Amino acid sequence: MKKIINQPDQVVGDMLNGLAYAYDSLVRRVPDTTVIARTLDPSGKVGLVSGGGSGHEPSHAGFVGKGMLSVAVAGQVFTSPTPDQILEGIKAADEGQGVFLVIKNYTGDVMNFDMAKELAELEDIEVDSIVVDDDIAVEDSTFSAGRRGVAGTVFMHKILGAAAESGASLKEIKALAEQVNNNLYSIGLALSPATNPEVGKPGFELEDNEIEFGIGIHGEPGYSRENLKPSKELAEEFVSKLKKEANWSSRDKFAVMVNGMGATPLMEQFVFMNDIRALLDDGEDLDLVYRKVGDYMTAIDMAGVSLTLLKIEDDKWIDYLNAPVEVIGW
Amino acid sequence: MKKIINQPDQVVGDMLNGLAYAYDSLVRRVPDTTVIARTLDPSGKVGLVSGGGSGHEPSHAGFVGKGMLSVAVAGQVFTSPTPDQILEGIKAADEGQGVFLVIKNYTGDVMNFDMAKELAELEDIEVDSIVVDDDIAVEDSTFSAGRRGVAGTVFMHKILGAAAESGASLKEIKALAEQVNNNLYSIGLALSPATNPEVGKPGFELEDNEIEFGIGIHGEPGYSRENLKPSKELAEEFVSKLKKEANWSSRDKFAVMVNGMGATPLMEQFVFMNDIRALLDDGEDLDLVYRKVGDYMTAIDMAGVSLTLLKIEDDKWIDYLNAPVEVIGW
Repeated sequence: MKKIINQPDQVVGDMLNGLAYAYDSLVRRVPDTTVIARTLDPSGKVGLVSGGGSGHEPSHAGFVGKGMLSVAVAGQVFTSPTPDQILEGIKAADEGQGVFLVIKNYTGDVMNFDMAKELAELEDIEVDSIVVDDDIAVEDSTFSAGRRGVAGTVFMHKILGAAAESGASLKEIKALAEQVNNNLYSIGLALSPATNPEVGKPGFELEDNEIEFGIGIHGEPGYSRENLKPSKELAEEFVSKLKKEANWSSRDKFAVMVNGMGATPLMEQFVFMNDIRALLDDGEDLDLVYRKVGDYMTAIDMAGVSLTLLKIEDDKWIDYLNAPVEVIGW
Repeated sequence: MKKIINQPDQVVGDMLNGLAYAYDSLVRRVPDTTVIARTLDPSGKVGLVSGGGSGHEPSHAGFVGKGMLSVAVAGQVFTSPTPDQILEGIKAADEGQGVFLVIKNYTGDVMNFDMAKELAELEDIEVDSIVVDDDIAVEDSTFSAGRRGVAGTVFMHKILGAAAESGASLKEIKALAEQVNNNLYSIGLALSPATNPEVGKPGFELEDNEIEFGIGIHGEPGYSRENLKPSKELAEEFVSKLKKEANWSSRDKFAVMVNGMGATPLMEQFVFMNDIRALLDDGEDLDLVYRKVGDYMTAIDMAGVSLTLLKIEDDKWIDYLNAPVEVIGW
């Protein structure tokens, strides 16, 4: 394992300290917790909390700040944060109007965030939540019952963050979150595996010319191993799978994200976006009203990309996506 | 070679098209060129042009937009753009107040940008330039006479961009650029080599537990190969080298950048920043007034980090660093 770290079991603490130090005008680490909270004074808005295992940076702490999340709670690498850590996050996010949790659909996260919700309710904080399950690659997986939550979660953060900032109520945010989740579709592939520093070796192996379609963001198995193909053919595979789910028609509006998995350079991500453009814009005649390319939901040092499509059901979502933010990673 | 590309010789064109499509509100590709220009209407400010070989994304196209560059000119991977391409860039940047070129110190870039300057002057465009040589690791290198230009170039873009936006003249920008360059110090290391898609194999080799100190952003040799060490010790090596150059005293003000080389995840970059914090802020008692962590000047898919320090000679530089921008990659 070749990594710039100190003790493997201190990686998360060191990382959170480095992040909070580098961007102390935007965020702070709540002492004695794994909670990264924004530095803004409370404004009486609904608190927005996300989080999960570490290793997906800039998710989720990179999206804490004005216009996106109030708080992110970090677990150990690829491991859900504990209910008591999430409770600390909920308390830090609470501005008196309730707190909304954005949970990626993994068994550990769902269980621990639910438990934290109950604990917070005992302390008279109103809490509601969404479980994001945008990954269309596989039904149940090694880490989840049902579909996994992946890069589409970042669009969820952005849209709910803008809505919360503009004064939406907890009930309105819940309804918006459900509508967004119903229109959110992602799929990924890996060229090389991730190495969890707490484990010390790659989570799986791929041959020199092999890729895996449908990979999860913790290296969970996808649906097919094949030889590496040109970018255009990778894009075709993604688009054909997404079309079956999203069932689009010409001129339908979509937001699109090409997301790097951590070790894939922007060069390749932009090449891939160019092939997605040809297929979706020129080919399918979709109206891609919002576009984003970069590392947003990574899998430590995995090489690969994912593609996320959000069908725009309400033009207000476009405004929410374009609304200004003050965060590290958007 | 495992990459998400189509034909290796089309990588740069595909990438520029993907980038310009994804962010068409910010930038456009000037037809039949490798020039990425901002979409803003001219405002009568000094034009700011940078560029160089591709493979350093988001440099330089990711810094085109309001508050930073007017134009970026891309060459083939790790190869300077040609004088005629740079001339196209100068023309696209010209708003009647002269054009300033930010050139990284590599033999090919210096020669071609200088030639383009002469061509532009024949067309009555006033042009001046700075050659950035912030890399303290080695004197002359395989690609340069004198020190190389690396990640500090991005601080140069930001500061000059803010100055140009606020109406500074070509002469003022030249003086500012020289002052910034005289106070700019970078050093990098690699954990793994980069693979140029046009070449098809890694530019050098490292053993499983070996790193290289002082590596260049094209994989040019550094000054020492050693076994991998904990992050703290890597940070100590960088800080001791930088201290000799920058010759600082307690409470001196610096801007700091931890830069990822392309395949190193943010997790490790933040861990490294935490160790830099301990050494420079706690240890040396420097005043790190501006901090930045992420992939800014990469070497395709090289794993590694660099550290850049800018000694703040004028508090206005801090305002310039903090000024808002509308670009892809800042």
